[in-house]
Amino acid sequence: MTPKGDPRTQKSSQQASLEWLSAEYHDLNGDHIDILEGTPTALEFARIVQISRPVLIKNGLSPNICGCHSRWVRVASFSSCTYPTNTKERRADAITLGPNGKLYFAEPAVEKMTMQCLLGNLSDDKCSDGDGVAAETYYLQSQNGNVYSSGYDSSEFEPLRQDIPSHVAWCTEALGKSPEAVNVWIGDGGSISSIHSDPYENIYTVVRGQKHFTLLPPTDGWCLDERFYPHATYVRNAGNLVLQPSPENSPPVRWASILNHRLPGYIPPEAHPIHISVSENEAIYIPVGWWHHVRQTGITVALNWWYDTEMRGMSWVMLSYLRDMKDVPSGNTDDEGPKSGCVIRAGM
Amino acid sequence: MTPKGDPRTQKSSQQASLEWLSAEYHDLNGDHIDILEGTPTALEFARIVQISRPVLIKNGLSPNICGCHSRWVRVASFSSCTYPTNTKERRADAITLGPNGKLYFAEPAVEKMTMQCLLGNLSDDKCSDGDGVAAETYYLQSQNGNVYSSGYDSSEFEPLRQDIPSHVAWCTEALGKSPEAVNVWIGDGGSISSIHSDPYENIYTVVRGQKHFTLLPPTDGWCLDERFYPHATYVRNAGNLVLQPSPENSPPVRWASILNHRLPGYIPPEAHPIHISVSENEAIYIPVGWWHHVRQTGITVALNWWYDTEMRGMSWVMLSYLRDMKDVPSGNTDDEGPKSGCVIRAGM
Ligand SMILES: O=C(O)CCC(=O)C(=O)O
Ligand SMILES: O=C(O)CCC(=O)C(=O)O
Repeated sequence: MTPKGDPRTQKSSQQASLEWLSAEYHDLNGDHIDILEGTPTALEFARIVQISRPVLIKNGLSPNICGCHSRWVRVASFSSCTYPTNTKERRADAITLGPNGKLYFAEPAVEKMTMQCLLGNLSDDKCSDGDGVAAETYYLQSQNGNVYSSGYDSSEFEPLRQDIPSHVAWCTEALGKSPEAVNVWIGDGGSISSIHSDPYENIYTVVRGQKHFTLLPPTDGWCLDERFYPHATYVRNAGNLVLQPSPENSPPVRWASILNHRLPGYIPPEAHPIHISVSENEAIYIPVGWWHHVRQTGITVALNWWYDTEMRGMSWVMLSYLRDMKDVPSGNTDDEGPKSGCVIRAGM
Repeated sequence: MTPKGDPRTQKSSQQASLEWLSAEYHDLNGDHIDILEGTPTALEFARIVQISRPVLIKNGLSPNICGCHSRWVRVASFSSCTYPTNTKERRADAITLGPNGKLYFAEPAVEKMTMQCLLGNLSDDKCSDGDGVAAETYYLQSQNGNVYSSGYDSSEFEPLRQDIPSHVAWCTEALGKSPEAVNVWIGDGGSISSIHSDPYENIYTVVRGQKHFTLLPPTDGWCLDERFYPHATYVRNAGNLVLQPSPENSPPVRWASILNHRLPGYIPPEAHPIHISVSENEAIYIPVGWWHHVRQTGITVALNWWYDTEMRGMSWVMLSYLRDMKDVPSGNTDDEGPKSGCVIRAGM
């Protein structure tokens, strides 16, 4: 169901509505996020979920995963992501120019490797504008419940399960359900997750290193210039990563197109970004529908627990409305095109 | 802030949006409301508040107020509401024709009386279409925190305070605050509260008799034909109740205009009403922004606890949006006029 009417007049009225919601939300909520000195009780967290604003949680969430090196090296073979980093226009999780001059949403290559291989390709010195520093960026970010998935299938990271809780007790109790997926993320300053939103409540904790989140409320999504792009994937060919367009009939991908992969300076002026760094042994709650861009400093290890969102009530309806009201043109037929290289994962 | 543009095209696009929200909300939530066999824990209730749908709670909420007759009669003098019931067009909390042929939103007369006087004017036999049965309807419904208000001022119902808890423990704990107002309601089958919504979370319990609620989600508000009416109040003049228009510069009142004070059969077909009866020793949770029309069977005594709503997060923004998007004409200058007698208290 989408509202009917003359698309042009409708667009401007819908645009006005999106701007109203964005300004009103910001007027009432400001840029403040709460910082908790320790983990909340289930009841405290249930109140936080109702408000649905990010919270930084200090102390005590991370399992003691750093100390168990012997188990890490037993993670002999797993799937990791690789993508070229040598030019601004060739990244993964980004709009990139295909061999035929068309713009694509490019997914990284997924390659089997050992922990030693991954760590050998990461560096504590690489910074997040590391274009040209290394030809390829390695980022273990399979996002498929690589530690635990809701079916409790086997995991490439089986040896680490004894160090990683399968759920976050106060969150499970507050939401009345177990997580849908638990992921480990391992990368360095070259690894960037471009801005996107997910249909999950997210508890994200840093075990080593530091992560830098840029967060936007769901009401700011209209600023991100979402467009539809054809899909492509990096594949390795004679040693090099080559972008391979997916078959013509693959569904296009809805992605935000904004100026640059180093997001903070390029957030559109109408948006209301919140910048927050999460250090070792801290966690952040990212509520469903919040847009987030993530950078990191040094070799970082992080874990996250994704909980399915509550579909009952108004919140999901509202998120769908914010999404469905938006005018989303094609990234290729519109001659304006995406504004630049970095693209934004639209998980919802 | 309201969206700009050509008001006519805008109206139709906004109308389409309101209809989309209403249908989508109903698709995802249906007409179901949960029934709890006992009072929830604070955590269970926090989850309910997040979903923001009504819940019927059986057993154990009402204080044992019925048994303490000696204290009731000590409530010697209090303010109660009276309004004429002899014609369909002359009720309180309703649009009514003023002496000058103009339509008004009429408030009831507020008169001091004793409990004996009030009870003497109530009857267990009167039914809710009691027009013509009695010339006047008595309904103690002062709605001003008549038992407790947030400032804990003195109360006309002081003797009853020892029987009426000043808060509902699991609700106070879930919301992290004390109630803003606690009210006692005493009426009979002639007493009707026309449909309205409040900016409160509401725990409403029946001590004696039975209440019949018709509930609509906030997304259905657009069906209620809200209009602006000038304000008037009933005053007693030589024994009779006479409608007195308020001064010209009094702010107009935004009220829904729908067909009849006996609401259930007259809900517009686009709306999604939920009908639920609440009996002695049961309670209902009415979430902020939900429209409710309330009738009763027999002499009824009820209590409610109003908790201030949470202004942070998306819910309040969404409720404001649903309200601000609506086109609200004047009830008098538009020649269509309100559709009929009963009008709907728009508390928000
Ligand atoms: O850590 C990252 O790079 C991204 C994390 C993320 O997007 C998520 O947990 O949803
Ligand atoms: O009981 C009634 O008549 C109305 C109750 C009501 O509207 C409320 O508690 O908000």
